[in-house]
Amino acid sequence: MVEFNWSVRVYYEDTDAGGVVFYANYLKFFERARTEWFRSLGIGLQQMQDEHQAIFVVKASAVEYHAPARLDDELRISAVVEKIGNASVVFKQEACLGEKLLASAVITICCIDSLAWKAKVIPAQIVQQLKNVKMQ
Amino acid sequence: MVEFNWSVRVYYEDTDAGGVVFYANYLKFFERARTEWFRSLGIGLQQMQDEHQAIFVVKASAVEYHAPARLDDELRISAVVEKIGNASVVFKQEACLGEKLLASAVITICCIDSLAWKAKVIPAQIVQQLKNVKMQ
Amino acid sequence: MVEFNWSVRVYYEDTDAGGVVFYANYLKFFERARTEWFRSLGIGLQQMQDEHQAIFVVKASAVEYHAPARLDDELRISAVVEKIGNASVVFKQEACLGEKLLASAVITICCIDSLAWKAKVIPAQIVQQLKNVKMQ
Amino acid sequence: MVEFNWSVRVYYEDTDAGGVVFYANYLKFFERARTEWFRSLGIGLQQMQDEHQAIFVVKASAVEYHAPARLDDELRISAVVEKIGNASVVFKQEACLGEKLLASAVITICCIDSLAWKAKVIPAQIVQQLKNVKMQ
Repeated sequence: MVEFNWSVRVYYEDTDAGGVVFYANYLKFFERARTEWFRSLGIGLQQMQDEHQAIFVVKASAVEYHAPARLDDELRISAVVEKIGNASVVFKQEACLGEKLLASAVITICCIDSLAWKAKVIPAQIVQQLKNVKMQ
Repeated sequence: MVEFNWSVRVYYEDTDAGGVVFYANYLKFFERARTEWFRSLGIGLQQMQDEHQAIFVVKASAVEYHAPARLDDELRISAVVEKIGNASVVFKQEACLGEKLLASAVITICCIDSLAWKAKVIPAQIVQQLKNVKMQ
Repeated sequence: MVEFNWSVRVYYEDTDAGGVVFYANYLKFFERARTEWFRSLGIGLQQMQDEHQAIFVVKASAVEYHAPARLDDELRISAVVEKIGNASVVFKQEACLGEKLLASAVITICCIDSLAWKAKVIPAQIVQQLKNVKMQ
Repeated sequence: MVEFNWSVRVYYEDTDAGGVVFYANYLKFFERARTEWFRSLGIGLQQMQDEHQAIFVVKASAVEYHAPARLDDELRISAVVEKIGNASVVFKQEACLGEKLLASAVITICCIDSLAWKAKVIPAQIVQQLKNVKMQ
């Protein structure tokens, strides 16, 4: 199973008055990695909405914060697919600074109809691309 | 001419590693005051979109930062209408902590068609409400 | 056990291109409710840092997203203390629109030394205030 | 005079319910470009704080919004130094999608003492690096 990695630099916008990355912003970092992983598979989110009227929304997020990141740090954000359902995908993700684990997460995304805002089976072409990766 | 005031509390989410409110967030504070001022006039932004297919977007923002705000501060955000055009409204706004001026801004918003994303004359009913206030 | 409630209005800043509140922003809403609950007990976060060199950081967040919130919605954000440890507090929190549950969360915060950035026993005076509330 | 360019991808986190990039977020994009330009000169912001007790804060920002950016867009963010003062630097910046200008800005940053939070002459070594670039 392939692990996808994406590099994220910490700017002032990401930090808070504690002098570290604001915890909610790890959800943004994790999403950047998932989005770039989709992009690396040829799946564009805007395109998915335009062609399939489908968008992925986050259904559940469980994050544990182990150590803080600071201004100028370059983080490695990983994404691994745990499970592919009919309408959902579960990811395990981590944020690391060098070898140090800063945050770990399980994120469940769900495919929905972008107009009806109801769960929708993930378009077959996209499921196939996801499964191909998971097999590797 | 009436000045509208809105109170904003500073939370960790608003601050950065400098220990103060992140400067870009004043744009959010200013927008909250403008939105609440609209609401006080009976103008809901979602409703304006639903009924008139019209949304306000920010066309220009000029902000000067005079002094920092910190965690737990309660800021007073003011909004005064400077000028009402066919498709735009210009606001003068300030962020204050007690008597101390922290930031001052001129914000120009523009009415656009929410689908065509083109400038659009502000719906007559809304212009009337704005002008009534400006006269006071 | 007392439930604390705090009202949050949805502005453009809170939404994303899906037309709904960006999921990471519920963490901000939940924190606003916790902070205001602390404030209602006479506990200021800046003051806690200044007097005790102690800050609360989020150690773990588990959020489930049930239904979307939209522009102009007024949400009720609740906070209930589940457990008070030596250095941590566990909250159960919900975001509701009227009777409708939009998001539910378990948030664990941890007291740390703001300079050493290490776990620290919650100052006795603050534990007492928290326990008084939990008993009610 | 050298123009520095930095590429920024638009994610859901950057957008709002209008379906476009939230205007305040251009300030973040502009700052990323300035920060990476500093980094390309060997100037780290955390390092500047640690070694010189100096940080740059934004003193004034004037932004004009010409056209919207959307999800998945890859923007080019430029930064050109207009003027170097004793304690301040003025930048002209643009956000473009291909050849299309989306937003243009003049951003004034000011060097301050990170503890006293007062204006401070920019450390000589850093001024020299900035001037070398401006001469090119």
